[in-house]
Amino acid sequence: MITWSSLYHVVEAMMPLYAAMALGYASVRKKAFTPEQCVGINHFVALLAVPLLIFRMISSNNPYTMNIRFLAADTLQKVIILAALAAWARFSNNGSIAWVITLFSLATLPNTVLMGVPVLRGMYGPMSENLMVQIVVLQFVVWYVLVVFLFEYMAAQNAFMEQQQMSPPQANGSHSVDIPAVNADGSDPDVSIAQEETIRPSGMLILVMAVKKILKIPSTYASLLGLFWSLIAFRFGIKMPAIIDNSLSIISVSAIGLGMFSVGAFMAQRKKFITCGYYLAVLAMVMRFLIGPIVMLVSSFAVGLQGVFLNVGVVQAALPLAVLSFVYAEEYNVHPDIMSTGVIVGIFISVPLTILYYVLLGLER
Amino acid sequence: MITWSSLYHVVEAMMPLYAAMALGYASVRKKAFTPEQCVGINHFVALLAVPLLIFRMISSNNPYTMNIRFLAADTLQKVIILAALAAWARFSNNGSIAWVITLFSLATLPNTVLMGVPVLRGMYGPMSENLMVQIVVLQFVVWYVLVVFLFEYMAAQNAFMEQQQMSPPQANGSHSVDIPAVNADGSDPDVSIAQEETIRPSGMLILVMAVKKILKIPSTYASLLGLFWSLIAFRFGIKMPAIIDNSLSIISVSAIGLGMFSVGAFMAQRKKFITCGYYLAVLAMVMRFLIGPIVMLVSSFAVGLQGVFLNVGVVQAALPLAVLSFVYAEEYNVHPDIMSTGVIVGIFISVPLTILYYVLLGLER
Repeated sequence: MITWSSLYHVVEAMMPLYAAMALGYASVRKKAFTPEQCVGINHFVALLAVPLLIFRMISSNNPYTMNIRFLAADTLQKVIILAALAAWARFSNNGSIAWVITLFSLATLPNTVLMGVPVLRGMYGPMSENLMVQIVVLQFVVWYVLVVFLFEYMAAQNAFMEQQQMSPPQANGSHSVDIPAVNADGSDPDVSIAQEETIRPSGMLILVMAVKKILKIPSTYASLLGLFWSLIAFRFGIKMPAIIDNSLSIISVSAIGLGMFSVGAFMAQRKKFITCGYYLAVLAMVMRFLIGPIVMLVSSFAVGLQGVFLNVGVVQAALPLAVLSFVYAEEYNVHPDIMSTGVIVGIFISVPLTILYYVLLGLER
Repeated sequence: MITWSSLYHVVEAMMPLYAAMALGYASVRKKAFTPEQCVGINHFVALLAVPLLIFRMISSNNPYTMNIRFLAADTLQKVIILAALAAWARFSNNGSIAWVITLFSLATLPNTVLMGVPVLRGMYGPMSENLMVQIVVLQFVVWYVLVVFLFEYMAAQNAFMEQQQMSPPQANGSHSVDIPAVNADGSDPDVSIAQEETIRPSGMLILVMAVKKILKIPSTYASLLGLFWSLIAFRFGIKMPAIIDNSLSIISVSAIGLGMFSVGAFMAQRKKFITCGYYLAVLAMVMRFLIGPIVMLVSSFAVGLQGVFLNVGVVQAALPLAVLSFVYAEEYNVHPDIMSTGVIVGIFISVPLTILYYVLLGLER
């Protein structure tokens, strides 16, 4: 059963995050920081503070004692949602890769680093911090890599289609293969082959560009390096020297405060909180706070996850949207307004909703 | 006696500070941050992180158990140096308020908040952190207020002299007091009175402007508020609620890392480390690392300070120059090149020198 005291602990864990965010909001509204100065702070968070925090989190986590069942539930949730979205995109007229990425990010990528660790620690104690770290590993080593790959694939596809529209004579004239018969699906073989020829090299190009992009994401290689270090360190019983750990932590401790400050500053620079319209805002919230956690609950039952592990899994799935998802949406210009609304509104909605999930799951036990 | 292990602890305490600084230096050199973005980070440190750190430090310090003898030694050091500089300015042809402020800042205002607390804690354990907090209180409530007042006084004096030079007829014509005799010191009574009339109202103006400036310095009112809170809290046994303390600390923990990062970024933006010439650079280092600590040693003996308190007092007096001193020097354009050199060179020199003082004082015990 949930007691008032444990509920107070949750509020105690969430309050500092909102205080830092409010400070960022107020500072920008009072013109204490220019937009370019805010970019500097945000840049510091994304380039240095968060990657160092991720490295420290992952490098201090024993990879040989990871909870396979817990990670299986998390993976199953993401695979189910991705498969459903891919099927919808394939068979619906409205489907597109852009919407697959947007809805997948909304439903499955919560703010694990900045909000997940402190909030879950407040709810379920230090063991949940360790579980969050395990989700962070997969998030950065697998899922964000996939998201960036899809973004790059889409960008390449768009570039190809523009090229096709701009130069049809060259595209048709470039192939000289003589095929007497019509294709199996009855489509014009000429166009099909012409496209394949141009797509094939661009398939490699997409992969190269995606890898290049991923290597530019400090969080990703911080995860990989951290995982690499932890695999060696926990295998051979090596401890990180205090002098190195302290040198990393002097910067990484600023990640959560500065990250939330930056979210507040970002809000203050927008004219409206809801920039994508109410219909899409509601859709974003349903994906984030209903579909995501419910599919996580189903996945957890499917793999036989129980007790506090189940609770941690579902509650973390009901955290606000990861800020990084918005960053990519803006970089690739794919529904940035929806993602911005998802981050901002999500943060406000998450207080009652995360606590509601926490209470409901507590009642059930 | 100093052991190798205790020396390692000192290096362990200093290393993260230099790591953060090196990161700031490298980031700016690699063009990861624009100058305006660096201003944003520095602004965050000065406006929010450091004041919140100062407030937390001072509000958690029991003002009723402060070490009066220790503070007397610190105060005596500053009074001796100020009196000597004032006498030199009064009786020498080269003396000026500008040089009094510069040399006083160089000799008596070390980097207590960002470097003092972590380094001294590494050397003499947690009790020295408490002693540093007591020096921080005086530094912000008394000494920086004095420095800003002198800067404002000088600015007003310069403004008055410019006004005098630009409009001698009005200045002479404005007084109508008829004095028959010559002044006691034989000077022309006309000019003396004309000056006094203009200086008197500007005396009030200087005070008002200085107070206004001081109220704009977040560190100063963070100190006053912290002192106020601690006087009430420790009198009536009130504890800061964890929820408020955590909300303050989420930002304040970033102060030391971001502060040192900002110092490194500042270095990277300069063309040369020594901008004021070698003669003045040596003078600055002598004031900081020789005159300051020696006068502190003398003052400590004079008030009967002994043992570890004496050591803490002398070692903290040999810390690098406070970054805030440079900030003011630049704001009032009074020897900013000397202060910049003082901060940068001081930080590099301080590693061997602070450790040397630590070892020498350790041998003596």
